[in-house]
Amino acid sequence: MSVLQHHLVATSSLSSSTSAFFAQNSFDVGRTQVVSVPLKKMGVCKCVATSPAEQTAYKTQVSRNGNIAKLQAGYLFPEVCTITSASYLLIVSNVNLKLCCYFALEMIFKDFSCAKLQIGRRKAAHMLKHPDAEVISLGIGDTTEPIPEVITSAMAKRALALSTVEGYSGYGAEQGEKPLRARLASTFYANLGIEEDDIFVSDGAKSDISRLQVLFGSNVTMAVQDPSYPAYVDSSVIMGQTGQFQKDVEKFGKIEYMKCTPENDFFPDLSKVARTDIIFFCSPNNPTGSAASREQLIQLVKFAKDNGSIIIYDSAYAMYVSGDTPKSIFEIPGAKEVAIETASFSKYAGFTGVRLGWTVVPKELKYSDGFPVAKDFNRIVCTGFNGASNIAQAGGLACLSPEGLEAMHEVVGFYKENTQIIVDTFTSLGFKVYGGKHAPYVWVHFPGQSSWDVFSEILGEDPCCYHTW
Amino acid sequence: MSVLQHHLVATSSLSSSTSAFFAQNSFDVGRTQVVSVPLKKMGVCKCVATSPAEQTAYKTQVSRNGNIAKLQAGYLFPEVCTITSASYLLIVSNVNLKLCCYFALEMIFKDFSCAKLQIGRRKAAHMLKHPDAEVISLGIGDTTEPIPEVITSAMAKRALALSTVEGYSGYGAEQGEKPLRARLASTFYANLGIEEDDIFVSDGAKSDISRLQVLFGSNVTMAVQDPSYPAYVDSSVIMGQTGQFQKDVEKFGKIEYMKCTPENDFFPDLSKVARTDIIFFCSPNNPTGSAASREQLIQLVKFAKDNGSIIIYDSAYAMYVSGDTPKSIFEIPGAKEVAIETASFSKYAGFTGVRLGWTVVPKELKYSDGFPVAKDFNRIVCTGFNGASNIAQAGGLACLSPEGLEAMHEVVGFYKENTQIIVDTFTSLGFKVYGGKHAPYVWVHFPGQSSWDVFSEILGEDPCCYHTW
Repeated sequence: MSVLQHHLVATSSLSSSTSAFFAQNSFDVGRTQVVSVPLKKMGVCKCVATSPAEQTAYKTQVSRNGNIAKLQAGYLFPEVCTITSASYLLIVSNVNLKLCCYFALEMIFKDFSCAKLQIGRRKAAHMLKHPDAEVISLGIGDTTEPIPEVITSAMAKRALALSTVEGYSGYGAEQGEKPLRARLASTFYANLGIEEDDIFVSDGAKSDISRLQVLFGSNVTMAVQDPSYPAYVDSSVIMGQTGQFQKDVEKFGKIEYMKCTPENDFFPDLSKVARTDIIFFCSPNNPTGSAASREQLIQLVKFAKDNGSIIIYDSAYAMYVSGDTPKSIFEIPGAKEVAIETASFSKYAGFTGVRLGWTVVPKELKYSDGFPVAKDFNRIVCTGFNGASNIAQAGGLACLSPEGLEAMHEVVGFYKENTQIIVDTFTSLGFKVYGGKHAPYVWVHFPGQSSWDVFSEILGEDPCCYHTW
Repeated sequence: MSVLQHHLVATSSLSSSTSAFFAQNSFDVGRTQVVSVPLKKMGVCKCVATSPAEQTAYKTQVSRNGNIAKLQAGYLFPEVCTITSASYLLIVSNVNLKLCCYFALEMIFKDFSCAKLQIGRRKAAHMLKHPDAEVISLGIGDTTEPIPEVITSAMAKRALALSTVEGYSGYGAEQGEKPLRARLASTFYANLGIEEDDIFVSDGAKSDISRLQVLFGSNVTMAVQDPSYPAYVDSSVIMGQTGQFQKDVEKFGKIEYMKCTPENDFFPDLSKVARTDIIFFCSPNNPTGSAASREQLIQLVKFAKDNGSIIIYDSAYAMYVSGDTPKSIFEIPGAKEVAIETASFSKYAGFTGVRLGWTVVPKELKYSDGFPVAKDFNRIVCTGFNGASNIAQAGGLACLSPEGLEAMHEVVGFYKENTQIIVDTFTSLGFKVYGGKHAPYVWVHFPGQSSWDVFSEILGEDPCCYHTW
């Protein structure tokens, strides 16, 4: 038993787990068992199941999209599925920490679909072996807390009203319902000069990131924080903005990776960042949990302005921010001319399954020929989207009522409390902990160990097994 | 007063309308008034409002996506916004035909955003002038009938359950919830060899069409029925698959337009159709209302197979089909090797605002290198989508219960009854009517008149005004 395991088991008084990571008295402790998954050494990780039907002789004469093929290269080989260099373990706190035997490892993977699959497989195998085990997954930054009733009752009401002549509505505006757009503007952007018609309601930030990639097309260059949410890079690869995957450095060609580590306070050294058309910037960051300060964001906006770049600012965790740290890029003067902001109800109200977000494209943002970016984004939205579900939008409106806002703050407070427990636990164990202040993400340093090693240590398994997953 | 108007007013016994199109005794007659919208002669149609902010001096150095610029060219000029050559008027029956003063003209436009805007403007102007008028829009193939309670109560129940610990769920599978995928397979594809894992649940067919375009990328060629739902062409242009818009023929370069007119029974003469990678085929067709027969679909599948093409079959109106006419392309032997099918709950259950659809990508469908298309589509879905709203999915599952199916058939029956009224009315007026049998779309021939002319005649306005809209 490792020191880490020893401590964890030692602090548990209620757990019947074989591994009781986190199961100390300050948590509600449940029951867990750890499974040893039979591992295929040197096996190739395939992320979609194959079947005998694949042997069918007939093939069309349509060539596979080479850009997606690039992406596949990033996850079909086992060396990419293991992170040998990473020495940080990401932990997502937005779960009810009764017990924990799976970690949100996928975010530090070059390919999160693969990691997700692996975690999913392990979970399934575990459940098969221990059907009574209560497994709580810490993966994907998912939410676990029920949605406050003030919000679900509004959705239920809207759903039921759809059965009445007066309450029925068909296609809504692709950009979202007017009252919701107005409430978003007044709630999150009051005095920032963002207006109702700058806001496009969507089915979530992930969908909007893809729509933004379609908007900009294949000829733009992009920069991204490293590490960051993998959908920025993946969607860029799919659109053909990048070169091939370079196995030696585990990076795609033509992408400007902006190193964000404890050494630079998780903010890139902009003097060393090459000019790109698009700069993806996530703050509070997924996965490091760090939030850029006002001074840092002023630098970022100036950098974009000097270079004529467009920032795509992902503020999905903005409500976790406290103090003077900006919640929106539009708090920075001049940002409206260089930035788009994408946001979501997912992590405030537990809408990960309900699907509701929004993207702000200020009318002040222009292409080099002076054409407003918002006009083209409107076109993309109208051509390839038919609006978020009207029931979800009713929920969104309820989120922004005084009671809804209070309820969301409570949800955020709950996850922040969990975060603090994780921070305290790891700190007391002697580990260096980052993030967790303005975000539900905690970034823990395990010197000299890979993430998979730490994962396997916690599970009480042989670390070397994981290298060949 | 034209002959058409005269007849319509003459057959109305209850209407107080100045124009009472459709207001004959067989309809529930309401009250309508027609507005004369001040028209700017030779004005340019702009589809997004401009504002003083556009005068801001700062521009980024990001080039506008040239593909979207191509698209804009298709609707910024007034000659494209009027259809001078069309002599058919599309009428969508899926409304409660109490009265009618707006027609679903947008589908025969080269650019439906523009037409929609124009119709929207006229409606707004009308409502401003006549605030008491009860306007029923026949645009966009929207639905007007309330959703059956068996379906909304399931959605309300799911929404409320999200406030409970037991009923809460976060991120679902991007491909959709397993029970819904299974039920879709057994309901619509029983005995057709389509399995649960071939089905990707989505927020609607329009979104899936765009995702399919991203899947295939910019290097494929595409064919499309002419006329057809404009999103196929628009999304193809956005992805860079096409050439520029050619004003003389009102078509985009590099697209194979397959003429579908009464002369060829709305089915293309495949001996004259050039080989393309992708063939968009909508049946029952939006806007002509025609459904391809079994023999025609056998020809289509053979054509695709001979050419190694992939058919994207839009079956959004399949439940309107009666008799032996196929409801799914997969009823045709061999289709699984050459076809994708996209479908929707919108027109069966009034889900246009709720947003729920699905796309079938059979595992038998392969690229020229043998790689399964479904694997790449799965990748697209996982990267740029997070699944349809769980509440909408609960509604979808209820739609497929015995009671839900019965309720959907009632909704479809209602719209089909409306359709028959339109068919009978126009036939009795001496017009040649197409469609309307397997679809809620009716395609009426007005010899020697443009669609706008017919529209304006019905409104009792001067036809020539519309040419410069």
